Amino acid sequence: IETSNAERLRVLIGDLHESDLGDVLQALSREEREALIALMGGDFDWTALTEVDETVRDEILETIPNTAIAEAVRELDSDDAIGILEDLADEDREEILAALPLAERIKLERSFDYPEESAGRRMTTRFIAVPPFWTVGQTIDFLREDDRLPDDFTEVFVVDPRFCFLGTVSLDRLLRTKRPVRIEEIMGEVTHSVSATDDQEEVARLFERYNLLSVGVVDESDRLVGVITIDDIVDVIEEEADEDIKRLAGVGDEELTDTFVSAVRSRFIWLLLNLGTALLASAVIGLFDGTISQMVALAVLMPIVASMGGNAGTQTMTVAVRALATRDIETINPIRFISREALVGLANGVLFAIIIGVVASLWFSSTQLGGIIAVAMIINMVAAGLAGILIPLALEKAGADPAIASSVFVTTVTDVVGFFAFLGLAAWWFAIS
Amino acid sequence: IETSNAERLRVLIGDLHESDLGDVLQALSREEREALIALMGGDFDWTALTEVDETVRDEILETIPNTAIAEAVRELDSDDAIGILEDLADEDREEILAALPLAERIKLERSFDYPEESAGRRMTTRFIAVPPFWTVGQTIDFLREDDRLPDDFTEVFVVDPRFCFLGTVSLDRLLRTKRPVRIEEIMGEVTHSVSATDDQEEVARLFERYNLLSVGVVDESDRLVGVITIDDIVDVIEEEADEDIKRLAGVGDEELTDTFVSAVRSRFIWLLLNLGTALLASAVIGLFDGTISQMVALAVLMPIVASMGGNAGTQTMTVAVRALATRDIETINPIRFISREALVGLANGVLFAIIIGVVASLWFSSTQLGGIIAVAMIINMVAAGLAGILIPLALEKAGADPAIASSVFVTTVTDVVGFFAFLGLAAWWFAIS
Repeated sequence: IETSNAERLRVLIGDLHESDLGDVLQALSREEREALIALMGGDFDWTALTEVDETVRDEILETIPNTAIAEAVRELDSDDAIGILEDLADEDREEILAALPLAERIKLERSFDYPEESAGRRMTTRFIAVPPFWTVGQTIDFLREDDRLPDDFTEVFVVDPRFCFLGTVSLDRLLRTKRPVRIEEIMGEVTHSVSATDDQEEVARLFERYNLLSVGVVDESDRLVGVITIDDIVDVIEEEADEDIKRLAGVGDEELTDTFVSAVRSRFIWLLLNLGTALLASAVIGLFDGTISQMVALAVLMPIVASMGGNAGTQTMTVAVRALATRDIETINPIRFISREALVGLANGVLFAIIIGVVASLWFSSTQLGGIIAVAMIINMVAAGLAGILIPLALEKAGADPAIASSVFVTTVTDVVGFFAFLGLAAWWFAIS
Repeated sequence: IETSNAERLRVLIGDLHESDLGDVLQALSREEREALIALMGGDFDWTALTEVDETVRDEILETIPNTAIAEAVRELDSDDAIGILEDLADEDREEILAALPLAERIKLERSFDYPEESAGRRMTTRFIAVPPFWTVGQTIDFLREDDRLPDDFTEVFVVDPRFCFLGTVSLDRLLRTKRPVRIEEIMGEVTHSVSATDDQEEVARLFERYNLLSVGVVDESDRLVGVITIDDIVDVIEEEADEDIKRLAGVGDEELTDTFVSAVRSRFIWLLLNLGTALLASAVIGLFDGTISQMVALAVLMPIVASMGGNAGTQTMTVAVRALATRDIETINPIRFISREALVGLANGVLFAIIIGVVASLWFSSTQLGGIIAVAMIINMVAAGLAGILIPLALEKAGADPAIASSVFVTTVTDVVGFFAFLGLAAWWFAIS
């Protein structure tokens, strides 16, 4: 298809939804993408760029002159325009902004003043605002006549002459009310509004909690500057959950289309941290090399204690990190949570102590060895439960993201405690017996 | 507050949003909850029960007679009613359904015929359907006069006399059109509709992809039976992401409020699986006990190789599992993905081989040992990359959930390969030298 037949391409691609077009772009090679966009010309749906991974977007934008991008950005909703321009180099972005008409430039520049991942970046500045003294009839006539309205909307916002945010009227309310009624009579009070500097994750929680469809965004002086709609929030929720999963595994915000070099680099740091942990654990083992050389069975069995602790710690940690992320934890007494985790660790510790104690006794025909590994297992499982809950809580208190750093600390604790308890107990027991 | 002052309680609690009331319930003890609901009586907002964890909900419902539940369920939207009744024991549910008026009972029973986590369970059966030949004016008048409409809606659904789903009209479209225009002229075609038996995760992808606000649900004979709205989908997205995170860590669908016993039980199975893996790894070490007793340094260093492989494998696996869950992987050539992961493993393997080779050489003053651990590291990192991508892909192909089972298999591979490569190489090298 790529062999320059522009007519056929337009027929095939022209009606695709932006998400589907995004998928097409993603599946193509770099050169094919360039050819496709050139062939589509003015018919190319630029919103598709908001649907592709960052790496692909950057590659595409690099090949297009800034003036053409500026042309395209004018057609977009402000939140889509920001999504596209956000990751560009500063000088490219400024060149594109400079090529825009003054009004649009100011609007976009203001959005870029808000921090990344804030409500101000996610909001659209196209929304419908009416004064409170209008009637339902006036409002409906206004909606019927104005062509420059946003494509989809579910609420009308009510503002005073200074553009202070007074309230909202949902469209179904508007439809169900007789024409002469004044807007202020049916207006819902502002129960939820966000400030433009709020974090997008907080905004997402608000939507989730109160089942909102859209919410007004106000600036420092309480004036309505934009609207965030649920469709943007759905993406935020998905992104934030994705981030949590990937941070727990130490792959940051890696995406499938990331280049080889960036994948190697982002994972290297995590693995380096892990190497530090592993060396620490090795140093603990090194303390007991005399004991091991007397009894090689210790070397055979020691990874079991460490690995069981590591898994139990990860389980607790995951529950804790998710509870922190979804704010579920705020409704629970932390002492109750901590003691529950310690008890769960103890219970599973005892169960697995019995199992591994019997296995080790039979394998090496030594009930002493079985007893030692059983006690070490209980100690490490309780330590795992406590580390799994206390480390994320402490990181959250210290203002760090518990999803990023918890697992390194938790496995450090379970490795060190596991090896130390098992080998230390063995050294002590065989020394006194 | 719980000391029986019903008046004050009603003032305090009466206006709370269902989510906030849910939080209040969750934070209270079992007895306090019971007292609160009894005191609130008819003013209790039953939708709050859809906002609490399953365990808390079950506890609350146990204390309330079935007839009172039936009374409450009548007031609810069908999707909320299903959420509350879904987890009850079969006989309780039947008793409650039997106490409902015939029409409502049939509606709810039909929903329960659909499988769990399907679109049929999530949909509400309260929606607005109009015939295509009505005019905009007729429709608006109908909306103004009928009191029995759903609370919030964003679209009007168009059906033929047999209730076949023809199309939708968004409220903004309706508002912006002159009264004499016929509905069929402004109706949007049905581009997205789901069948009642579709999985809720598929439905969520559809909403995300096409930024929908609501979607019609049809039965086998293409008749419109319900509507799924975005607010329900937001919960689904959050739940599914949560499930993935927790399955990767082996804590199933555990919630913060789960009882001690159920937490121990759900984690036990995962740990038992992991014990099997750990024993397998120990058996591999056991093969080389002679080599270890000659050179205890091997025992000190061997956990490093296994642990680095385990972490690298988990990184790749997490990227793969997420790509499968979000269907991102469908736009990517799997061969490209697999070879990229192998190369990333090789690159990081070489980097860490150099680091650990130098560290081990200096620590134990043996360049031979340094060389052996370096080679073992490269082998295990490549194996980790391949296992991390191939195992989730194979599980997905086999119809299993890659989030549940991948990590056990991946760590088995990295442990076994890690210990075998390191100890095997050492045994071979010291035997020939």
